[in-house]
Amino acid sequence: MARPDDRAPDQLRPVRIQRGWLDHAEGSVLIEFGRTRVLCAASVQDSVPRWRRDSGLGWVTAEYAMLPRATNTRNDREAVKGRVGGRTHEISRLIGRSVRGCLDLRKLGENTVQLDCDVLQADGGTRTAAITGAYIALADAVSWMRGRGLVKQDPFTTSVSAISVGVVDGEPRLDLCYLEDAAAGTDMNVVCTGDGRFIEVQGTAEGAPFDRAELDALLDLAAGGCADLARLQAEALAS
Amino acid sequence: MARPDDRAPDQLRPVRIQRGWLDHAEGSVLIEFGRTRVLCAASVQDSVPRWRRDSGLGWVTAEYAMLPRATNTRNDREAVKGRVGGRTHEISRLIGRSVRGCLDLRKLGENTVQLDCDVLQADGGTRTAAITGAYIALADAVSWMRGRGLVKQDPFTTSVSAISVGVVDGEPRLDLCYLEDAAAGTDMNVVCTGDGRFIEVQGTAEGAPFDRAELDALLDLAAGGCADLARLQAEALAS
Amino acid sequence: MARPDDRAPDQLRPVRIQRGWLDHAEGSVLIEFGRTRVLCAASVQDSVPRWRRDSGLGWVTAEYAMLPRATNTRNDREAVKGRVGGRTHEISRLIGRSVRGCLDLRKLGENTVQLDCDVLQADGGTRTAAITGAYIALADAVSWMRGRGLVKQDPFTTSVSAISVGVVDGEPRLDLCYLEDAAAGTDMNVVCTGDGRFIEVQGTAEGAPFDRAELDALLDLAAGGCADLARLQAEALAS
Amino acid sequence: MARPDDRAPDQLRPVRIQRGWLDHAEGSVLIEFGRTRVLCAASVQDSVPRWRRDSGLGWVTAEYAMLPRATNTRNDREAVKGRVGGRTHEISRLIGRSVRGCLDLRKLGENTVQLDCDVLQADGGTRTAAITGAYIALADAVSWMRGRGLVKQDPFTTSVSAISVGVVDGEPRLDLCYLEDAAAGTDMNVVCTGDGRFIEVQGTAEGAPFDRAELDALLDLAAGGCADLARLQAEALAS
Amino acid sequence: MARPDDRAPDQLRPVRIQRGWLDHAEGSVLIEFGRTRVLCAASVQDSVPRWRRDSGLGWVTAEYAMLPRATNTRNDREAVKGRVGGRTHEISRLIGRSVRGCLDLRKLGENTVQLDCDVLQADGGTRTAAITGAYIALADAVSWMRGRGLVKQDPFTTSVSAISVGVVDGEPRLDLCYLEDAAAGTDMNVVCTGDGRFIEVQGTAEGAPFDRAELDALLDLAAGGCADLARLQAEALAS
Amino acid sequence: MARPDDRAPDQLRPVRIQRGWLDHAEGSVLIEFGRTRVLCAASVQDSVPRWRRDSGLGWVTAEYAMLPRATNTRNDREAVKGRVGGRTHEISRLIGRSVRGCLDLRKLGENTVQLDCDVLQADGGTRTAAITGAYIALADAVSWMRGRGLVKQDPFTTSVSAISVGVVDGEPRLDLCYLEDAAAGTDMNVVCTGDGRFIEVQGTAEGAPFDRAELDALLDLAAGGCADLARLQAEALAS
Repeated sequence: MARPDDRAPDQLRPVRIQRGWLDHAEGSVLIEFGRTRVLCAASVQDSVPRWRRDSGLGWVTAEYAMLPRATNTRNDREAVKGRVGGRTHEISRLIGRSVRGCLDLRKLGENTVQLDCDVLQADGGTRTAAITGAYIALADAVSWMRGRGLVKQDPFTTSVSAISVGVVDGEPRLDLCYLEDAAAGTDMNVVCTGDGRFIEVQGTAEGAPFDRAELDALLDLAAGGCADLARLQAEALAS
Repeated sequence: MARPDDRAPDQLRPVRIQRGWLDHAEGSVLIEFGRTRVLCAASVQDSVPRWRRDSGLGWVTAEYAMLPRATNTRNDREAVKGRVGGRTHEISRLIGRSVRGCLDLRKLGENTVQLDCDVLQADGGTRTAAITGAYIALADAVSWMRGRGLVKQDPFTTSVSAISVGVVDGEPRLDLCYLEDAAAGTDMNVVCTGDGRFIEVQGTAEGAPFDRAELDALLDLAAGGCADLARLQAEALAS
Repeated sequence: MARPDDRAPDQLRPVRIQRGWLDHAEGSVLIEFGRTRVLCAASVQDSVPRWRRDSGLGWVTAEYAMLPRATNTRNDREAVKGRVGGRTHEISRLIGRSVRGCLDLRKLGENTVQLDCDVLQADGGTRTAAITGAYIALADAVSWMRGRGLVKQDPFTTSVSAISVGVVDGEPRLDLCYLEDAAAGTDMNVVCTGDGRFIEVQGTAEGAPFDRAELDALLDLAAGGCADLARLQAEALAS
Repeated sequence: MARPDDRAPDQLRPVRIQRGWLDHAEGSVLIEFGRTRVLCAASVQDSVPRWRRDSGLGWVTAEYAMLPRATNTRNDREAVKGRVGGRTHEISRLIGRSVRGCLDLRKLGENTVQLDCDVLQADGGTRTAAITGAYIALADAVSWMRGRGLVKQDPFTTSVSAISVGVVDGEPRLDLCYLEDAAAGTDMNVVCTGDGRFIEVQGTAEGAPFDRAELDALLDLAAGGCADLARLQAEALAS
Repeated sequence: MARPDDRAPDQLRPVRIQRGWLDHAEGSVLIEFGRTRVLCAASVQDSVPRWRRDSGLGWVTAEYAMLPRATNTRNDREAVKGRVGGRTHEISRLIGRSVRGCLDLRKLGENTVQLDCDVLQADGGTRTAAITGAYIALADAVSWMRGRGLVKQDPFTTSVSAISVGVVDGEPRLDLCYLEDAAAGTDMNVVCTGDGRFIEVQGTAEGAPFDRAELDALLDLAAGGCADLARLQAEALAS
Repeated sequence: MARPDDRAPDQLRPVRIQRGWLDHAEGSVLIEFGRTRVLCAASVQDSVPRWRRDSGLGWVTAEYAMLPRATNTRNDREAVKGRVGGRTHEISRLIGRSVRGCLDLRKLGENTVQLDCDVLQADGGTRTAAITGAYIALADAVSWMRGRGLVKQDPFTTSVSAISVGVVDGEPRLDLCYLEDAAAGTDMNVVCTGDGRFIEVQGTAEGAPFDRAELDALLDLAAGGCADLARLQAEALAS
């Protein structure tokens, strides 16, 4: 069965990266994976949370959220419900861990970067777009900090990007859109560094359990997709 | 003293209206008043809240919110704080009242339109941009409903737009940006119909109380600004 | 159509002011506008909130609330619902802004007055009675502070009172009771200083939008009502 | 040591009972035990909570609360804190159990009476004044219900009142004011029926544990105080 | 009518006390009253809450909770409901007061012991088992503190235990199981010291009010049961 | 470097499984992985949540929580904090997905099983012990349902167990205790079926990113550990 947008199984959706989309934030990007559209903003603070003071280490943290009408049918706001949902928490923590995985926090000094990833429109892969965009917003915020002397050395050890993979109609596919994601038997999100190692692997059998061969095929596909994204990130940051 | 962007006292900031900015929503618009940027989405439901059932009347309601880094320094998310703040509540209610003021709710039938106004970037006048944009998103959603036969007759009795006015350096000015808003002695938000009547007048003395002459000057200025906005709304909806 | 209590259109309901209704509070008043009955208490603290320290300025803030059976049918407590509602927030903020509008906060020194306005019984105009009473409780608390040397100079630049006006059966009327308020096409709350200037004007079209002539008539009516209230406040404070 | 107001150890403070203090409630009373002042309102609903439907039984429940400046220093509102505190919950439940203890709920039919006991001023004994007043408000609400035919037979099996007792300076005393309450080694609240039996006994050693002789002396004192209150309640209801 | 487990009216259920059930806590006990099973853990902190600093006094506080399936049908978690219920609050406060009643807090020094009483299985008497077990966990934590020199002198003035009593089928009975508790006309929880005095007496008429003779009979029964528990506590601590 | 308890790298900690630990629950188990001790209770309801009605499918869901003193230092209760934390949410969702992965929900019929996994003591691997125990509690609850005719056919397609693996001191190790978990560079939780396939793979680089070879070694180790657990589960259910 062909993919809804006729992509090859190992092909990313069109990726669009607009840096500096916001005027106030120290780093910001509007990133699109097809129709998925995430606004990532990086906010710099020249201090760290109380529990990290006098450690000499910086801190990077993230919050993920979705506008109520990002999706096909409207979702109630978490602020109105009075609490952050489990899925939101889970993704926020994942983004934070992922971006911290490409940094030497000693070189960041006792500064904090808060990353806000707000999904303006969702069509599958919002968390992977968020991680991929967050890295760019963070890179811009770090440049800003270096320009002001807050950070003296390049704290990045590598770059970070993320992609979803899944088995749909028995075929391993890269970068699932919402329709594919809903139909996938196995669904995996993979976060890779620019040099091809793994920061996070999260695979879930939505339907039948998966065997080692399927797992291996998905990991191969994801590694390739992340390598493509790393190249696009580098191009965007070079422009 | 000149205005920060050299506008005439009765001049609006550049207004930019992009209809259909979202793929899923029944109506949507990205509206900009200068650097203030608000995403308005209209979601249609073919039912009304319980308290309104069997009334023959439709319902339109609104929620306003701001992304954490819409502003110059980051604000904590209301979802994380676990409650919607007073200011947010106040503005949400104002938007709802304003857009209901241009509708005959009987002609809407027992349908609900939920308007979400999310401030992506803030530079003063977010609530007035939200009202002005919400009207357009609503108009598009109503067209969608008419196309599907959910609504039989045009429910609009007029259009609605809103603008801020204030006294800065002793001079009454239209459409204050953030810097002017912070410096204003008196601050007023005015919501007008397309035929020049008032739906809401909210004037506050931030510093010294104001007299009737000042009040009259501000009302004149606001009425002119709303007339300009009504024209821009009509053009956007005609295109 | 006559008013429910046969008042003239520009006539206040009977106003009753009982100062010192509480034994513990530094200032307190039970104020009645007809059957509307609000208990206003002023609590003094010889410090200011953290964000205001070392500014040399005092602070005055207010909280409004309603007992569950103040109204015709019982309302659930906000404490039980676990959150303060939008309307409550809105009115609390209005009261705070209004009373701050008649003060020179430098002369208050770094002291805080917290005003609690609790509606014991409601029959329309609870927010305007609350503002009018809060001023008196504040005046008594300031006298108490001056008696203890906490405040050296009179911080009042004027007095403040508030009244509702509205168009009922096509007739502009002063000080609406609940029945009139529910029937009003346009509803406005106006806060004036003792010298006849405006601190706040909040007009809302509940039904049809209103034109400039109606707005002017309502403002005239409100200014007259506030002048009457200012006289009654002065009498109460003189006794 | 004499009592702060020179009362005999077994003497109540002056009790003042004003029935019908509110215009809207089906029953209401402002009750004073000395400077303690509690407004009790009874609200009638012609239905019962879901879990009690089709049982043929009525329901009576109570909520207790305190205005922020009822006490000597201001307390934050529970609505603002976002939750009802443990002490408030405990007293609300006590009031509910106490008033249900004098009723045959079958004779109430499937109706609910909600009792709101709001402490306007506190000087010790707020919960006992609340119970004593709640009975009167309930009696008036039941009369109202009988007048409308909602209730056919007298549901009261007896009356209910409550008083505090405690050991202060080694002396058992009745109806402690705040100063005595704070100094009491043992503190007990006793709820009695009009015919001298017990509905609730809650004794707490604040300092040293108490022995059986002290417990007996306090129970005697409380029984006498409740008998006095039962007489005052009967007089108030007869007038 | 015989008791469900054929006990004599003044007989406790089998009591089982397992000290040191947890590896991390400074004191812990799994206590069983028949099928009621409560895990009590004592956590030591070498400081006191802010409001108690520089008083020279220690602090002991308690939290009670129930696992969702401790009971016959599952109860929702309070964490999921987002608030601690009234009954939970009430019992937590009771446990704290009870254990403080057997201590000289000056001898504890400025240390805090936090007692957590978690009901793993409930069959009536959970609060009395919790108090009885909390005393043992506290005793072990105090030994731990004395071993480390945090506490120099024995702070215990006596021991503390608690038991429920009630009138079932007209018969006063000790240590009610759930079935008896649900059927009891009068229900009382009594907290005693090891030397036979009272720390807390809480009696409630669930059905008909009770007279002084019944009250006396229940107090006698409870005093006997607490004496038995005090002996069992001493044995457990001696082993 | 040797492991803290001298285990071989591919050796589980002692596993202890006590079925039927609770009297009320339809299935229950106290499971221990070394010092980690989790109480799993299964509660049966003969209906499904509203969103699943008339689907013919059953539902299984889980909630994970930790007692405050399960850990080395005390953690505040989530009920007291008023919200369920991100980590708790994440693990609850993981347990639910995992146990649903071994079931044919059609064969469960429109019944719900709620699994409560409460950590009584924590020493690493609480989520994997919870999943492994939850399966057993679920199996017992399903037997109970089959005994009552609620379920007609065996709904299990396989069994499910889970284990943690990680790289410590450069060595891939199975079933990390807390000390090893804190020191691990890479940490992975793997959920397997009884027939050796994967339901969930969650690997995180805590320190340096990991490469494909490390990932493969950890997956091998985990598959072996889960096979051991599947055998222990089968033995426990057979006894």
